[in-house]
Amino acid sequence: MWNGHHLLSMEHANAAQARALLAIADADAFASDLLAGRSIANLFFEDSTRTRVSFSLAGQWLGAHVVDLTSKGSSISKGETLIDTAWTIEAMGVDALVIRVGESNACKQIADQVKIPVINAGDGTNQHPTQALADALTIGRSFKRTADWDLSDLRVAIVGDVVSSRVAGSNIGLLNALGASVVVVGSPTMAPDSMASMGCAVVHDLDAVVDQVDVMMMLRIQFERGGGDGIASTEEYHEQFGLTKARADRMKSDAIVMHPGPMNRNVEIASEVADGKRSVILDQVANGVLVRKAVLATAITQC
Amino acid sequence: MWNGHHLLSMEHANAAQARALLAIADADAFASDLLAGRSIANLFFEDSTRTRVSFSLAGQWLGAHVVDLTSKGSSISKGETLIDTAWTIEAMGVDALVIRVGESNACKQIADQVKIPVINAGDGTNQHPTQALADALTIGRSFKRTADWDLSDLRVAIVGDVVSSRVAGSNIGLLNALGASVVVVGSPTMAPDSMASMGCAVVHDLDAVVDQVDVMMMLRIQFERGGGDGIASTEEYHEQFGLTKARADRMKSDAIVMHPGPMNRNVEIASEVADGKRSVILDQVANGVLVRKAVLATAITQC
Amino acid sequence: MWNGHHLLSMEHANAAQARALLAIADADAFASDLLAGRSIANLFFEDSTRTRVSFSLAGQWLGAHVVDLTSKGSSISKGETLIDTAWTIEAMGVDALVIRVGESNACKQIADQVKIPVINAGDGTNQHPTQALADALTIGRSFKRTADWDLSDLRVAIVGDVVSSRVAGSNIGLLNALGASVVVVGSPTMAPDSMASMGCAVVHDLDAVVDQVDVMMMLRIQFERGGGDGIASTEEYHEQFGLTKARADRMKSDAIVMHPGPMNRNVEIASEVADGKRSVILDQVANGVLVRKAVLATAITQC
Repeated sequence: MWNGHHLLSMEHANAAQARALLAIADADAFASDLLAGRSIANLFFEDSTRTRVSFSLAGQWLGAHVVDLTSKGSSISKGETLIDTAWTIEAMGVDALVIRVGESNACKQIADQVKIPVINAGDGTNQHPTQALADALTIGRSFKRTADWDLSDLRVAIVGDVVSSRVAGSNIGLLNALGASVVVVGSPTMAPDSMASMGCAVVHDLDAVVDQVDVMMMLRIQFERGGGDGIASTEEYHEQFGLTKARADRMKSDAIVMHPGPMNRNVEIASEVADGKRSVILDQVANGVLVRKAVLATAITQC
Repeated sequence: MWNGHHLLSMEHANAAQARALLAIADADAFASDLLAGRSIANLFFEDSTRTRVSFSLAGQWLGAHVVDLTSKGSSISKGETLIDTAWTIEAMGVDALVIRVGESNACKQIADQVKIPVINAGDGTNQHPTQALADALTIGRSFKRTADWDLSDLRVAIVGDVVSSRVAGSNIGLLNALGASVVVVGSPTMAPDSMASMGCAVVHDLDAVVDQVDVMMMLRIQFERGGGDGIASTEEYHEQFGLTKARADRMKSDAIVMHPGPMNRNVEIASEVADGKRSVILDQVANGVLVRKAVLATAITQC
Repeated sequence: MWNGHHLLSMEHANAAQARALLAIADADAFASDLLAGRSIANLFFEDSTRTRVSFSLAGQWLGAHVVDLTSKGSSISKGETLIDTAWTIEAMGVDALVIRVGESNACKQIADQVKIPVINAGDGTNQHPTQALADALTIGRSFKRTADWDLSDLRVAIVGDVVSSRVAGSNIGLLNALGASVVVVGSPTMAPDSMASMGCAVVHDLDAVVDQVDVMMMLRIQFERGGGDGIASTEEYHEQFGLTKARADRMKSDAIVMHPGPMNRNVEIASEVADGKRSVILDQVANGVLVRKAVLATAITQC
């Protein structure tokens, strides 16, 4: 996954590397001028609030300069290729590229052709590695596994349109590496049985796993992109695959509820569950900044 | 108005607090690293040049990191609620939220649910408190009231679509607190007689007050939003409620002309009056930065 | 051209001033806190990736605060005039304005009415002086003329829709001042014979100059803006005025290939030529940052 340079994927996550990175993030012992004089470019070819701002704050807190390029207002709208944009920004002397892009594997293609570190901030339906690291940090902190980041007795459900979720893709890889067992939950289209080859169980009935898992990770359902697998309404989705209050009440006593955000309240998760005592959703956000500090610091200082 | 934490409204401005804040702004004696390591998020859900940049510069000059979120490019476009966005950014560890939003009272609703200071940078037709503070600083400096910020012998006219202006709303509250007398001027729809309950006189004939006031504050008329109360044309508006050269010539000898910007030249104000010797319009801009430095410094360092 | 204050045009470039500026850029010996506490506003009323980011990085590496205003999200969309926007940002206390604007000569009009330095970052079809400086720095470094920036034995071809290119306009002025001879190449509409009055040769047949010049500077053809002078297709354009592999092979042994970007690969330049050994296209980008550091440092510290 991570050679201390590009951070592209958690598909074949290396446990030792992941644990080292999580320990760095957890310690949060960075000098505020660690990256003084260095600079980071956020190349965001898709909308994102939380990820862009999270990387920006992480970079600035390490003392780096951060510049944003979003597709609106960039040469991409003039037809320049992604790789030409990346080469151009690299030539300006920045020390790392943080890339959010709609095409799966585009980050890998760019990383193959630049010298500076590329951090994948979400590429299509493929990977979102820093989200998975933030989630692992959150799980490890919640279950007090910060000594060894060994999650081997934990069972994690990932619920929703799993097959097209980059968050799910990265989480399955990383959680497996850290020893957790993963079960994906959705309709046969959203969570096809073939996903078992990724090293997870596949279940189509949310009620069958609700009281069996330590972590319920609810994915955003993107009705606006045609998500929901033909389910007629948000109400029906909530009924079938949403984390309702009734389902949350059936969860194990110390089980936690996660969501990568942004949430559709009362669609994939009941509003009172999102704000309830099991929820670690805002911890995920806070831990996302720590993870991004760790990734940027490691990638840039190892160059 | 101001508890040293959230700054939301000038509707019930406290004179002592306002004077203390104006004195801090007027002194402009901030260390350039006062907010070093701190960070400020500009959540701008509506367009704004001057206010966003003014806050950004104020924050940066105090040594803070500033991140911008505008509605385009944010999760708001994915349907996330305002409060979820605010919680997310708060969870990232920022020290204050500066919010511009289209819905009146949205800032108050957010402030009620976050721990960090919320600075209202304009909410719908409700309030724009830092603009009012900038205007009071400008009036106080123009009339040499910087020792005590006592404006009690000054008469201020606010002219235009007063009832739907957040700038007017905040100015009436603050000017009253500082002792000035306020008269609002507009058609019966733009300046309804019921506004007298806010503590101001209401007049429908601009010519009746032009030579009576020390300050003429002209509001932007927003024809593009259906403003102008059925007035047929910008020319007609200018004739009825614009500060023409002829009207400016009738003003008291030391009276000043203000406008919160952006101006429609030759609509609510004649171009030569805007650029003339009575005009303190650019002072308002400069003082806006000082006020924002004072507000951010106070809000963040008192936490 | 340059009085150490505004940088607006290379039309009547002064050789001594240009050489001094190029020497400063080439040395790149700036203290990282040279502009500490100073601030720069990027007023970009047109899209641009490279130029805006290049100025932002240059400013930040000198220690300045940089704020961006783009037309989307600015008061321009509310009808404020350019000059009112400039006055407003000046009043906020920034130390320089970097302006990209669609109207030719708009930078000059603004510069005439503000006290702080205005740096033209591209105005319509008129001028783009920092691009020309970046190009001259690149040529001087490529041909080892960094001792005196004397380009008098070099011949430079500028190819494409020259007459409507601000890059060409600035390059012709600056290259002439530095002693190079310039030939512009295009159809009679794109490179009209009347351009000879600017001090360049005019040629309509690219093949006639390919083996005669030291520098081939290919311009972006803007088909999306109706460019191409009635040429039916990108393929036909490539055939007539593109730098094909065959043409590049005919170039002088040490001749270089330039492009200001963003490129239309395989339209005005063959992809393999853009990435080939003659290409200094990414050097132009890197040198653009150095030039912008030199310009900002000089303009702001001389105030």
